[in-house]
Amino acid sequence: MPAIKREQWRRHFGKWFRHILIDAGIMDYRYPIKGMAVWMPYGFKVRQNLLRVIRDLLDKTGHQEVRFPLLIPETSLAKEAEHMKSFEGQVFWVTRGGLTPLEIKYALRPTSEAAIAPMLKLWIRSHADLPIKLYQIVNVFRYETRATRPLIRMREVDNFKEAHTSHATLEEAEAQVKEAVEIYKKFFDTMATSYKMSKRPEWDKFPGAVYSIAFDQIMPDGRILQSGTVHNLGQNFAKAFDITYETEKGDRKHIWQTCYGLSGRPLVGMLAAHGDDNGAVLPPEIAPIQVVVIPIPSKEMEKQITKACQDTASKLSKSNISVELDLRPDLTPGAKYYYWELRGVPIRIEIGPRDVKQEEVTVVRRDTLEKQMCKADKIVGVVKKTMEIMTNDMREKAWKWMNEHVYRVDKLEQANRLLKKRAGIVEVAWCGSEDCGHKLEEEVNARVLGTPVDLKEKLVGNCVVCGKKAKDIVRVAVAY
Amino acid sequence: MPAIKREQWRRHFGKWFRHILIDAGIMDYRYPIKGMAVWMPYGFKVRQNLLRVIRDLLDKTGHQEVRFPLLIPETSLAKEAEHMKSFEGQVFWVTRGGLTPLEIKYALRPTSEAAIAPMLKLWIRSHADLPIKLYQIVNVFRYETRATRPLIRMREVDNFKEAHTSHATLEEAEAQVKEAVEIYKKFFDTMATSYKMSKRPEWDKFPGAVYSIAFDQIMPDGRILQSGTVHNLGQNFAKAFDITYETEKGDRKHIWQTCYGLSGRPLVGMLAAHGDDNGAVLPPEIAPIQVVVIPIPSKEMEKQITKACQDTASKLSKSNISVELDLRPDLTPGAKYYYWELRGVPIRIEIGPRDVKQEEVTVVRRDTLEKQMCKADKIVGVVKKTMEIMTNDMREKAWKWMNEHVYRVDKLEQANRLLKKRAGIVEVAWCGSEDCGHKLEEEVNARVLGTPVDLKEKLVGNCVVCGKKAKDIVRVAVAY
Repeated sequence: MPAIKREQWRRHFGKWFRHILIDAGIMDYRYPIKGMAVWMPYGFKVRQNLLRVIRDLLDKTGHQEVRFPLLIPETSLAKEAEHMKSFEGQVFWVTRGGLTPLEIKYALRPTSEAAIAPMLKLWIRSHADLPIKLYQIVNVFRYETRATRPLIRMREVDNFKEAHTSHATLEEAEAQVKEAVEIYKKFFDTMATSYKMSKRPEWDKFPGAVYSIAFDQIMPDGRILQSGTVHNLGQNFAKAFDITYETEKGDRKHIWQTCYGLSGRPLVGMLAAHGDDNGAVLPPEIAPIQVVVIPIPSKEMEKQITKACQDTASKLSKSNISVELDLRPDLTPGAKYYYWELRGVPIRIEIGPRDVKQEEVTVVRRDTLEKQMCKADKIVGVVKKTMEIMTNDMREKAWKWMNEHVYRVDKLEQANRLLKKRAGIVEVAWCGSEDCGHKLEEEVNARVLGTPVDLKEKLVGNCVVCGKKAKDIVRVAVAY
Repeated sequence: MPAIKREQWRRHFGKWFRHILIDAGIMDYRYPIKGMAVWMPYGFKVRQNLLRVIRDLLDKTGHQEVRFPLLIPETSLAKEAEHMKSFEGQVFWVTRGGLTPLEIKYALRPTSEAAIAPMLKLWIRSHADLPIKLYQIVNVFRYETRATRPLIRMREVDNFKEAHTSHATLEEAEAQVKEAVEIYKKFFDTMATSYKMSKRPEWDKFPGAVYSIAFDQIMPDGRILQSGTVHNLGQNFAKAFDITYETEKGDRKHIWQTCYGLSGRPLVGMLAAHGDDNGAVLPPEIAPIQVVVIPIPSKEMEKQITKACQDTASKLSKSNISVELDLRPDLTPGAKYYYWELRGVPIRIEIGPRDVKQEEVTVVRRDTLEKQMCKADKIVGVVKKTMEIMTNDMREKAWKWMNEHVYRVDKLEQANRLLKKRAGIVEVAWCGSEDCGHKLEEEVNARVLGTPVDLKEKLVGNCVVCGKKAKDIVRVAVAY
């Protein structure tokens, strides 16, 4: 099978992405408010499958799903000073109920720390109540003044997956941060996508956090996308809201907290990692339709072909494989291929007259478009095996592509050159000072992502900005 | 087994209900904004099970799940005049983004007709695009100035299940109304609850609808709860938003629409229908935990009892029955009974020394508290059968109780007397005039629910208000 991919899509990623969202039936962003969009039926199913994966991961690790109200009184939001300072200029405010002005205005939650804290204060009495590990999947809002982009920069993020945990000790909170990182790694693994984990610099951590770890993904246009974050909140919110517990000894102490969240962006990362000129390519575990069965018509054998297609679909369906039988009479096989390739269905099965005669079916992988023949009675095993291989190949390809777009350089001008052409992530040595960090951002006109969490190495070298002995590697990239 | 239920709870329904919500871990309504509350972990699971049921029913009948934005521009809301007139004084308005006043203010959706219409206009081109049957499960808002009550009257209804359908003809829209009614009947059936269906009077239909059918449930305090509604929208929104399709003949016509919704109230109806002095009683299909296994300790046989409990729990779990094994060492069996009865777990299994010796277990039904002995190796079958019988008994009891609280009377003073003591629903003959309808509401100080949809009878009699020949039966009740 010759490689038919011309890889044009990467060069026009923004256009390709908008095309896929609407034409593959994922999201319609023509809603009359900027930065707010509609999940269409097929996209909604993809979204639900992603949510199923993260729910499973969180449930299995003892998190409990809950749901807090959307609105946060200004008085609650204001309790943690850093939090308020950062968010008051960025949130939508409800100021009127009907025709009446409200006495206290309400924020549409940008995140839920300030919604949850007053309830934790009611719920937590003693050490026996801890830890509490909660999560919710809700819509959050930011009044973005920058240009919005569908799924990438929204004013309503409608499926923010946010977890909030409370602990008796700093050590437990630290252990929780590690658990959260592992959960998110598994989530990205299921999507067969790659990421880099960086500890954000002081000046770019979550408002109210002690430190923040981020998962960044490199997009086809060389810009990075922050797709998930994990924060150790220390006792900042606990002190602001005075949330305490009684220790075994009988004294009262403030709790320790973490929080972590995933926006709608992991889906962007997934589409971007696996796409091609023909459209989306969905990992089998996420695809709402895993297999499409398409008859290759032949007048004299029409009935037999239809029956073979139905039998195949029925066998797969009984084995819990999600299958669609496309018998639309008014479309050619070619038009059907186009339709399902655009939507990223992982496996296509074609059945024509020769296949029926030989009791075979043709199996086509969406990612490579490779064909294989398969005995009709072996189809379930072949599909399962092919989906497994495909997932692994897609994951490997995603990691390989990302690693090819991470650069280690010694000189500022090298970094500058790479970032100017949007080459990906650039790693340089850094003395660790905030001053040099800001200078670095200015010089290369990009964002400091922070220091690697996923690398252990003995560092030799000098800060690319001041030339003093470096303390750390720091990552820089042009960010969405 | 003697009846231990003193039925005190019905007399103090409001207090009982608030107790169940917090103490059974369903909902905490102490959130710092009136009419907004927090779903706690156990309640969230109940909520998810209800959503699973309605999703299954809607998916099976060709509805597609989607998700529209929360915010609706004032300009969209204003397009259908009746709709705007009704909602502008009742919605929360977002007027500021950050520190900046917005040019066009946004409503927090009170319902989504005006959010969906502009997109339908983009999506619908020809008759081949119809019908479109969409639904979404989202949070909706009303600025309630009346006293709020947890789950019953909220300012944020966080799991509004709203369906919106578009059709080529009036006939198809009418057929859709019938399908919607059947879907909702099945939904209430699964909850083992009872209801009355009434066509709301002209002055109380949904703003923008041609007519509205409502599902009303009678609460233990004799008041009724509107738990679901089905509306034929005719072409009102289609004309306001100019949504047209090309017919087969090539001309353009406005579409016909229906919409139907269920708020958070069906859960109230479910808790109210089956509760007792000991707490909630959940129908087996909705219960997050269907069976709890509790050991009756005995020092000399501790190991054998624990093992028997584990074996039983494992057998049930393997048969897809959701089971909890309560081995908490610090609680007596009595304290555990109290704990799980409050939470409404349908079946309790007790295993003590005598049971182990006889290779038996004791099975207790939550609704009747009846005990039965069962051979340990027959437990799966017995539990399944008991859950089935229990569901039927609960449903029968709910219908019987409701029917005992529906009265047919001839005279206004009889209606008045019954409604004054909150006896339930009162049916009277009515001439059909709006004037008499309003007078009736004034005279009996209650709400006209409308004319029966679920009754076919030949009516003889005169209007209780004006004495002229009656056209219809009309239902009256004190409503929440």
